Amino acid sequence: MRIAVIGAGAIGCLYGGRLARAGHDVHFLMRRDLEAVRQRGLTITSCDGDFHLDNVQAYGDPAEIGPVDLVLCALKATAIDDAEALIRPCLGPETRLLTMMNGFNIEPHFARWFPPERILAGLAFVCCNRGEPGVIHHLDHGRVMFGHCLDDVEQARQIAQLFAEADFDTQVAASLLEARWIKLMWNIPFSTLAVSAGSVTTREILADEVLSELARTLIRETGQAANADGCRVDIDAMVDKMMTDTATMGAYKPSMLVDYRNRSPVEVEAILGEPLRRAEALGVPVPCMRMQYGLVRFLDRLNRGLVTPG
Amino acid sequence: MRIAVIGAGAIGCLYGGRLARAGHDVHFLMRRDLEAVRQRGLTITSCDGDFHLDNVQAYGDPAEIGPVDLVLCALKATAIDDAEALIRPCLGPETRLLTMMNGFNIEPHFARWFPPERILAGLAFVCCNRGEPGVIHHLDHGRVMFGHCLDDVEQARQIAQLFAEADFDTQVAASLLEARWIKLMWNIPFSTLAVSAGSVTTREILADEVLSELARTLIRETGQAANADGCRVDIDAMVDKMMTDTATMGAYKPSMLVDYRNRSPVEVEAILGEPLRRAEALGVPVPCMRMQYGLVRFLDRLNRGLVTPG
Repeated sequence: MRIAVIGAGAIGCLYGGRLARAGHDVHFLMRRDLEAVRQRGLTITSCDGDFHLDNVQAYGDPAEIGPVDLVLCALKATAIDDAEALIRPCLGPETRLLTMMNGFNIEPHFARWFPPERILAGLAFVCCNRGEPGVIHHLDHGRVMFGHCLDDVEQARQIAQLFAEADFDTQVAASLLEARWIKLMWNIPFSTLAVSAGSVTTREILADEVLSELARTLIRETGQAANADGCRVDIDAMVDKMMTDTATMGAYKPSMLVDYRNRSPVEVEAILGEPLRRAEALGVPVPCMRMQYGLVRFLDRLNRGLVTPG
Repeated sequence: MRIAVIGAGAIGCLYGGRLARAGHDVHFLMRRDLEAVRQRGLTITSCDGDFHLDNVQAYGDPAEIGPVDLVLCALKATAIDDAEALIRPCLGPETRLLTMMNGFNIEPHFARWFPPERILAGLAFVCCNRGEPGVIHHLDHGRVMFGHCLDDVEQARQIAQLFAEADFDTQVAASLLEARWIKLMWNIPFSTLAVSAGSVTTREILADEVLSELARTLIRETGQAANADGCRVDIDAMVDKMMTDTATMGAYKPSMLVDYRNRSPVEVEAILGEPLRRAEALGVPVPCMRMQYGLVRFLDRLNRGLVTPG
């Protein structure tokens, strides 16, 4: 299958790289790592076994890629407004679009200009970071939950099959909305506390009894919003699962923390602002989500020099 | 009147200094500023007019002070467990104790070992900071609300009179508990957000629409706790007053922020932990207070090297 990876950061390179290794014709749109990958290929250190790809098809301009069967869009949510211009050159009449992006209201955003019947989502439960240019570190996990914008489960199953053949653990979501909310039940507590608690990893959050209780509260609030939004999440079970899963990660840096430490914009609107606004529109009390939103949104601005402290 | 100022930081020096200027026999127990004050006296730059005191009676050991009529205790709340040993040498059979300390449950703490009939409190609504050793900057406000541990208003009035004669704006609280809660309606939002929002002043909090809304939420939660605790606070009016008063302060650094920037312990238990526990014991929902407590408590520990970030 001819595949374009738009936004080849840690997620795009890890998943696109394994699809290439499995024999697919994968083309990567890159920015930071372009020259390094052209010169030295792509190296993935992985908990599933390291690998290296030579002769990676890497580009700086999507027009050089042209139409593909599948666009894997792994842009940061902060760049979602650039997505249309980057993806359009890769579209043919049958192209499907697979979003692998954090946050909420991602697919509805694409559905404004792309046929929703052909939009799929892959929600990656994975710990991975970029290393030096051309190197991706896959630290833990890797399962992807696939869903379809209109919950066409057969299409989700087909794309899951593609990833399963590339040696990924896959699942198919009957409800993409529910899958997105469940992923937020990890991201909202851990990504945002990692920033607001002074730039720390999941280890320090879990080790502090008061902070880890705040994480539980944030998971619960997110679950209550999900259920008010029509999902059927077992909130108590999910609190336990999220806490237990996170304990296996060690000193993990959520991507929001990596961005924050790099003084890059953090995905605060996608991960926190959008679900918060949805929850409040549904009348669900989410005071801790609102608190975190105010703090992280401000800390991001302060961190990027948009606010000058007195 | 013979007065001992125990804990001569910004508050102790400002109020004790003016009482000395008014002719009282004031003795200061100092640590950081002791040598400087002995050599050069005490300088107060003040929005009410600068002044300087030569020949200040400054000590490093309370035994050198001996019994007084009034102990003005202006220790940090983080040092409350040291108070008894520091104050005992200054006590005679008639000595009264005036606490000028931030937080909640201050007087009950002293009442464990000191007769509550002789405990008074002065709640300072003042912007002041320490400068170089021997120098205090009084930036704005200065009003003190006096109350008595058992709400003996006549005693509170006498002590208010003493301060009024030293040119302070004074008030007498019919209920010390209510006065303490009202002061917390400023400290809980502004002192704690100044720390959790990345070490910023009141100006940046007010300038950010989401943060300033969080401040309002924290004022409201505190007011609801106060009223559940038997007070009769007009919460909406107090939200407006706190926001309006704060807008006049410019880029003010609450003492909690000053401590945080100095990597000193912050008064998180007195200002936030104690009122939070009281609110929760009363069954009042205070989710934002709890969130702030978890964050500020952790940030303080991180800031002092008690947690190592990954």
